[in-house]
Amino acid sequence: MTVSKTPALDLTKTVRGTPPGEAGEDDTLKLGELSELLGYSLKRAQLKVFDDFIRCVAPLQLTPAQFSVLLLLERNPGRNQTEIASTLGILRPNFVSMLDGLESRELCVRMRSANDRRSHVLMLTDKGRAILARAKKLVATKHEARLNELLGPEKREALLGMLARIAREF
Amino acid sequence: MTVSKTPALDLTKTVRGTPPGEAGEDDTLKLGELSELLGYSLKRAQLKVFDDFIRCVAPLQLTPAQFSVLLLLERNPGRNQTEIASTLGILRPNFVSMLDGLESRELCVRMRSANDRRSHVLMLTDKGRAILARAKKLVATKHEARLNELLGPEKREALLGMLARIAREF
Repeated sequence: MTVSKTPALDLTKTVRGTPPGEAGEDDTLKLGELSELLGYSLKRAQLKVFDDFIRCVAPLQLTPAQFSVLLLLERNPGRNQTEIASTLGILRPNFVSMLDGLESRELCVRMRSANDRRSHVLMLTDKGRAILARAKKLVATKHEARLNELLGPEKREALLGMLARIAREF
Repeated sequence: MTVSKTPALDLTKTVRGTPPGEAGEDDTLKLGELSELLGYSLKRAQLKVFDDFIRCVAPLQLTPAQFSVLLLLERNPGRNQTEIASTLGILRPNFVSMLDGLESRELCVRMRSANDRRSHVLMLTDKGRAILARAKKLVATKHEARLNELLGPEKREALLGMLARIAREF
């Protein structure tokens, strides 16, 4: 792609429509071009959603990443560490320390693979399955239900579709 | 909110519409409910967009967070560290080490505030301003233009609107 004189988004111009309160009329800083950057907007929304997730699931002390590992283990029992980590896009050292935490709480176990003695397969324990079931209920009835209320089911679906497209094709 | 029998998203049911390739017909793991979780989808899309940002701005060696700091400094010269960090939602220790990096590259300077000797105000240097101008061009013509191509301008605006709403109201 060559540098064009009419880029899709001209970052040299003042952006329009900065909502009041972000406009810097008071002591608030001007966000300017930032509010038009998709990466920045994704990050801010993601942080907000993760904060709410953590609040909703607080009785069970699960982070979003731990929840996704448990979900994936339930769906895919007996897969090895590398497969789970790479599916979730979690770096190996981070994943190993996360597993240490889950294992010390007896939510999952690592076992040597019967096929490949160098590899570890992962399984949910009964306790892990029970915690996951409770977490799913909290997530559905508190967290996702509130998001659904905010956006409405149609917009929520549209948003999921666009995010999936970015994750898959961008 | 009470636990309802008809939650907005029933995580106990099999999700529909898992695209081929993620359906686990081959060795691929089944994502299951994960693909219906907004937090997970936001995170995956955000990682993809940040990766592309880093690639597009590689000649200038700026991360998305560093870029947003420079943008904010340009728009709001003379604000102090705390204001910039809290506007961007960056934790103080992370922000301080990021500033160390930007300052060692002479892209910005910290100066003692004339009003409050304990506080540091931040300013872009001329070099910082020049790098930021080049970064804006790369972001607009390579990164955001590609996102625009993928989604189309209307959907891109709709996406930005929904993300801003989540960040503001959720």
